[in-house]
Amino acid sequence: MSVRDTHISLGHGNGGRMMRELIEGLFLPALSNPQLDIGADAVPLPLPADRELVVTTDGFTVKPLEFPGGNIGSLAVHGTVNDIAVSGAVPRFLTLSVFLEEGLEIATLRRVIGALAAAAQDCGVAVVAGDTKVLGRGDCDGMYLAATGIGFRRRGTRLAMADVRAGDRILVSGPVGDHGAAVLLARQEFGLQGDLRSDSASVLPAAQALLRVPGLRFMRDPTRGGLATVAHELAGATGLTLSLSEERIPVNEAVQSVCELLGFDPLYLACEGRLVAVVAADAADQALHALRAVAPQAALIGQFTRGSAQVILDTAFGGQRALDELQDDPLPRIC
Amino acid sequence: MSVRDTHISLGHGNGGRMMRELIEGLFLPALSNPQLDIGADAVPLPLPADRELVVTTDGFTVKPLEFPGGNIGSLAVHGTVNDIAVSGAVPRFLTLSVFLEEGLEIATLRRVIGALAAAAQDCGVAVVAGDTKVLGRGDCDGMYLAATGIGFRRRGTRLAMADVRAGDRILVSGPVGDHGAAVLLARQEFGLQGDLRSDSASVLPAAQALLRVPGLRFMRDPTRGGLATVAHELAGATGLTLSLSEERIPVNEAVQSVCELLGFDPLYLACEGRLVAVVAADAADQALHALRAVAPQAALIGQFTRGSAQVILDTAFGGQRALDELQDDPLPRIC
Repeated sequence: MSVRDTHISLGHGNGGRMMRELIEGLFLPALSNPQLDIGADAVPLPLPADRELVVTTDGFTVKPLEFPGGNIGSLAVHGTVNDIAVSGAVPRFLTLSVFLEEGLEIATLRRVIGALAAAAQDCGVAVVAGDTKVLGRGDCDGMYLAATGIGFRRRGTRLAMADVRAGDRILVSGPVGDHGAAVLLARQEFGLQGDLRSDSASVLPAAQALLRVPGLRFMRDPTRGGLATVAHELAGATGLTLSLSEERIPVNEAVQSVCELLGFDPLYLACEGRLVAVVAADAADQALHALRAVAPQAALIGQFTRGSAQVILDTAFGGQRALDELQDDPLPRIC
Repeated sequence: MSVRDTHISLGHGNGGRMMRELIEGLFLPALSNPQLDIGADAVPLPLPADRELVVTTDGFTVKPLEFPGGNIGSLAVHGTVNDIAVSGAVPRFLTLSVFLEEGLEIATLRRVIGALAAAAQDCGVAVVAGDTKVLGRGDCDGMYLAATGIGFRRRGTRLAMADVRAGDRILVSGPVGDHGAAVLLARQEFGLQGDLRSDSASVLPAAQALLRVPGLRFMRDPTRGGLATVAHELAGATGLTLSLSEERIPVNEAVQSVCELLGFDPLYLACEGRLVAVVAADAADQALHALRAVAPQAALIGQFTRGSAQVILDTAFGGQRALDELQDDPLPRIC
């Protein structure tokens, strides 16, 4: 079965022949696996013993749909897999809900689903259920995705902000802001060109490496709102002051330059392949070592102290400034 | 924490303060449960022994957002719960991905999430993970939802189109086309008014009643594309001829009238609270009896015979006509 059309039309969303052609000619060849192929509305999944089920969901609306380092399809896989990975689980299954605009080029959809399938295979996850809705021209901007991830972790795994204590250290697995800066540049609204690439990738190897470190308290991937937003979530949830060292936070030079030119702060820009971890003070060196084995640019970037719930940046010039919580959206549709 | 604003703005999607207010002031009060309240990106779910996990996903783009008998929120719950129910499972958990248009009235969002929460409670499911994205004005028409449902069923439950045999009978749990006709009228494009209501509801009681009947082969809820589309899926998957009796298919009078006026066929209109079941011939009476205990208007409507893969309608006038597969979309954004 092949897709005879070159653009999406409303008929591709009606449940009938055109939709069947789209599913059989485009989605199934890319995503084929034993669960998806049963053609049922709900699929049974195998349950490993002594594991607990972990689930997450995310919407994806990135603009443009394709950018250096990925597209909305690979991003949906990485974003979902990473939420599962930072919970200490191994992602296994994805569900995928697709919103398409009438008139979307089917070649674009094919590239997106191809990248999604490749990323899913790399990450060891199978897309086990899907749904496609087609929206009239102007009711959607090309394509949006919603993905739900399902993974399994050792029963009784505990990683929670509530476990963070004064004295704990915070690490990041690599340079921050690459995804945000790359998407920004890909919009070509600024007349800038560069070789910036999104960091969109799985953080599962980094998360699994840290799980073996006793003293690991919490992990999160800094997506929307960037590192600064995760820092605020941690300060807010713990009631502690989180001090970050500006010098130690890795930022790629190209990202720094773009931010300076356009007036953005890389600490607020989304990453899609980085992990932030909190560990007990005496586990910090071991955690950094474990992380660097899979993420060479990982760094220890700060610590928690008693005080009010706030985030303080120790600047490169020896000063201090409060890192505010993000207010208005500086950069919509970044993920 | 209350939501200070009256309309959605891009800042409600940025991961920062406004988004936190929206989540804490609107989503959490409506959807509160132990899994959702942990504030993690991925949540652990309890696994019952001797059950298998069943998962499904669906997107919702219905226009208008609110219609007689429900809104996009209750529809998302019923649509997702029903896919789990017809797989022979009991739905337990939902994840919810929300796409909002900048400028959406927060009062509308509150009604939608309120109806979603009420429907979830009625159906015994908890919303355990969520995500919200805000799209610029014109990049979305009000609000879209994507929901993933997770349920559990007895290990080894088998309900598959592949098990359908010549001689098997087909039943429907109630009148068809109500949802499609009600949404159509709610659009007010036709200058028609009526007291039509969507049938949006859980089919779990009907599905559970049928599960106790030996000889049950397969169940599905006839949503997009209606009863005719499920009939085509069955004929296509089995290679059998499915004969439906026009007289026996229940259609509410108001639905029939609207269809006649506007040139639609109720067999192609979406239901959101009906179930189609296939049973062995010798189980047909027992199945109908079991179904009528929870769905009084349930009916035996046809049977499978050897022959080519097609759907034949035995008309009320004693004739026969082929029911074609749906081609173009007569009614986009019905669910």
